[in-house]
Amino acid sequence: MAVPEPFDAVDVIRTKRDRGELSDGQIDWVVDAYTRGVVADEQMSALAMAILLNGMERREIARWTDAMIRTGRRMDWSAVDRPTTDKHSTGGVGDKITLPLAPTVAACGAAVPQLSGRGLGHTGGTLDKLESIPGWRASLSASEMLEVLRSTGAVVCAAGDDLAPADKKLYALRDVTGTVEAIPLIASSIMSKKIAEGTGALVLDVKVGSGAFMKDVASARELASTMVALGSDAGVRTVALLTNMQTPLGLTAGNALEVRESVEVLDGGGPDDVVELTVTLAREMLAAAGLSGGKDPADALKDGSAMDVWRRMISAQGGDPSAPLPAARETHTVLAPASGVLAQLDAYQVGVAAWRLGAGRARKDESVQAAAGVELHAKPGAVVRAGEPLLTLHTDEPARFERALAALEGGYLIAPEGSRPDLPPLVIDRVG
Amino acid sequence: MAVPEPFDAVDVIRTKRDRGELSDGQIDWVVDAYTRGVVADEQMSALAMAILLNGMERREIARWTDAMIRTGRRMDWSAVDRPTTDKHSTGGVGDKITLPLAPTVAACGAAVPQLSGRGLGHTGGTLDKLESIPGWRASLSASEMLEVLRSTGAVVCAAGDDLAPADKKLYALRDVTGTVEAIPLIASSIMSKKIAEGTGALVLDVKVGSGAFMKDVASARELASTMVALGSDAGVRTVALLTNMQTPLGLTAGNALEVRESVEVLDGGGPDDVVELTVTLAREMLAAAGLSGGKDPADALKDGSAMDVWRRMISAQGGDPSAPLPAARETHTVLAPASGVLAQLDAYQVGVAAWRLGAGRARKDESVQAAAGVELHAKPGAVVRAGEPLLTLHTDEPARFERALAALEGGYLIAPEGSRPDLPPLVIDRVG
Repeated sequence: MAVPEPFDAVDVIRTKRDRGELSDGQIDWVVDAYTRGVVADEQMSALAMAILLNGMERREIARWTDAMIRTGRRMDWSAVDRPTTDKHSTGGVGDKITLPLAPTVAACGAAVPQLSGRGLGHTGGTLDKLESIPGWRASLSASEMLEVLRSTGAVVCAAGDDLAPADKKLYALRDVTGTVEAIPLIASSIMSKKIAEGTGALVLDVKVGSGAFMKDVASARELASTMVALGSDAGVRTVALLTNMQTPLGLTAGNALEVRESVEVLDGGGPDDVVELTVTLAREMLAAAGLSGGKDPADALKDGSAMDVWRRMISAQGGDPSAPLPAARETHTVLAPASGVLAQLDAYQVGVAAWRLGAGRARKDESVQAAAGVELHAKPGAVVRAGEPLLTLHTDEPARFERALAALEGGYLIAPEGSRPDLPPLVIDRVG
Repeated sequence: MAVPEPFDAVDVIRTKRDRGELSDGQIDWVVDAYTRGVVADEQMSALAMAILLNGMERREIARWTDAMIRTGRRMDWSAVDRPTTDKHSTGGVGDKITLPLAPTVAACGAAVPQLSGRGLGHTGGTLDKLESIPGWRASLSASEMLEVLRSTGAVVCAAGDDLAPADKKLYALRDVTGTVEAIPLIASSIMSKKIAEGTGALVLDVKVGSGAFMKDVASARELASTMVALGSDAGVRTVALLTNMQTPLGLTAGNALEVRESVEVLDGGGPDDVVELTVTLAREMLAAAGLSGGKDPADALKDGSAMDVWRRMISAQGGDPSAPLPAARETHTVLAPASGVLAQLDAYQVGVAAWRLGAGRARKDESVQAAAGVELHAKPGAVVRAGEPLLTLHTDEPARFERALAALEGGYLIAPEGSRPDLPPLVIDRVG
């Protein structure tokens, strides 16, 4: 005979619906029972909507996070002889930072065990980007992951099915039920995976702006401080930076295009903002891991040591770091309609254009084009000349240009020559 | 190739989540697409929770109701040569009023085409009660329903699957997702069925108190006025009474027990409150049907004409109105613990006790015991003597007594002799 369930799903839903606090027992049960299929999708989605609209106390969020971790296993890197440290970005357009960052931090003496994800909608995913490298594979067993981490100092791969399975199931549900935008659920989703990943230190890159999940600084700060508290409570030294996502990061949005730009950064070049954010995040990751005062990340980018880790890391996962990256069959260049100063280039619209060109996906099971995306020829603040290239669109399917161009309509603004557009700083704030 | 859907479920959910008004197009689509299975249960439950927490404007509720009606067919009684009028109760304990009421109103010249339901939880259902009559069947085809209505003036039967099928599906979903208690959804659920039923006039009996869905007069009044507006907008002359459900109606709660009491009323006797509410509601139904000034319902109960309709109505659906009703195998009598005035007898607790004795069900697919229930020997305001019977519990399974008695604990209060308990009137208010 089945053991009777200690709680009733409708009672749990009603508690949150009526603005009550969920007990530890209710949270443990509802997360576990949902993972087991005893609480149905339609019950969890009603609860998720009640959480979105009525909120959760810090205690509830911490318990919910812990309950999600306990539905799977927590990884352990005690066999690695360096301190572990990781970074998580809440997602943006052109955000390839993990690619130069992980090898840079490894080159400075820490170990980076990063479980990463794929893109959805207008934001890209690290695994999609790395998969544009011929031969590279995202799936590693736990022992392979340990082996890559020990031999190279950094590993970026897909999370196994046993890492916070409740979160995997809940995330898919939230995506189709309009319940993604709940800070308690976003924070617990991110932190359950990162805590289960077993990193000792964590730097959160909370994006703010049109291309980010959080459109305003206040929400971003709330999410950041919620996650920092969750990490700290779980014994992970956690800090968060709020960074600008009003315009794309760097000059590319798209999988192979972003790998190319990342390699430029690892080679000591690359766009200023990508270099700045890589170095800033690397210093935070090293400090959180207790490695301040050692080798500086800026030096690791210049002396080739970060590039060396990158090549070994890519090779260790079957990739050929010297192979040519895929190039799109078709390109279409958008010319500047006027001369002046580029005052705005909207991250969200560029992200949607890249997605429509084939770089992104609407549903989890869709594939992406390695070579598709958008290349920028100027960033906000730069002087542009009428008739010169502003953006180049890349795709294997020219039929996609029309909708990509439509996405970009009104997405850039050229101010009169001599204007000084008011641009936000790259790093807006630090929470930790 | 499938026709593309004109809306996206997540967009609709987000609109209501963010406190927006749903457009007519969104409402029509989401109700229809849910019925077709294109909008998934987990999407509709998230939307239902957003509606519960963020509310709906009158326009939205009216459109939602109409959209639910349009998922099925609307019945038509133009072939009946009398005006049609019906009553709907929001549900209570011991609420057998439909049984004496429908034949009484028919005896006064109107036609009563009542589609009724089954009980769930602590409240009973009219069909369960009638099914305790040997041979009586709830399911009729549309043509059988018309035939019974024409030949007897009243028909009480189950709604077919083609009557507001969206409501049927949504009600089952709300029941398991903590989204029952949303006034827009309660009002549209009730009114979609009643408008689709095709009645020309409608009297709503909105119960208020512990044994009712609405615990306070303000909520009951809001529900009543919402439903009256929905009915009037749809061309159904609609009024509502708010009536007391702090204590059970009459002296019985349970299926066959309530039939017995109803027959006593039809025979010119029965408890005062059941007679009063039957006559009051009958007068309202006749007035709404434009039949004021004809035969008075109180006379129909006294002269045997209501009883005559009852017997013909039961016979027409296969029932034997003369057959003995099922009696419980076991009874247990609760004695008054003290002498004095019965100051309280809680409707909810009596309802739960009757349910636990076997008269009710927790899930739709459970069966009920015809003979189970609670018989009251006194009503609030009556003088009771220590050691005399207060309640008699009826069931076929004596193992059920313990939990039924537990449900009744603290459910009645005996005040010192000479006390005058402050009891609410039976009819609290009228909205129309």
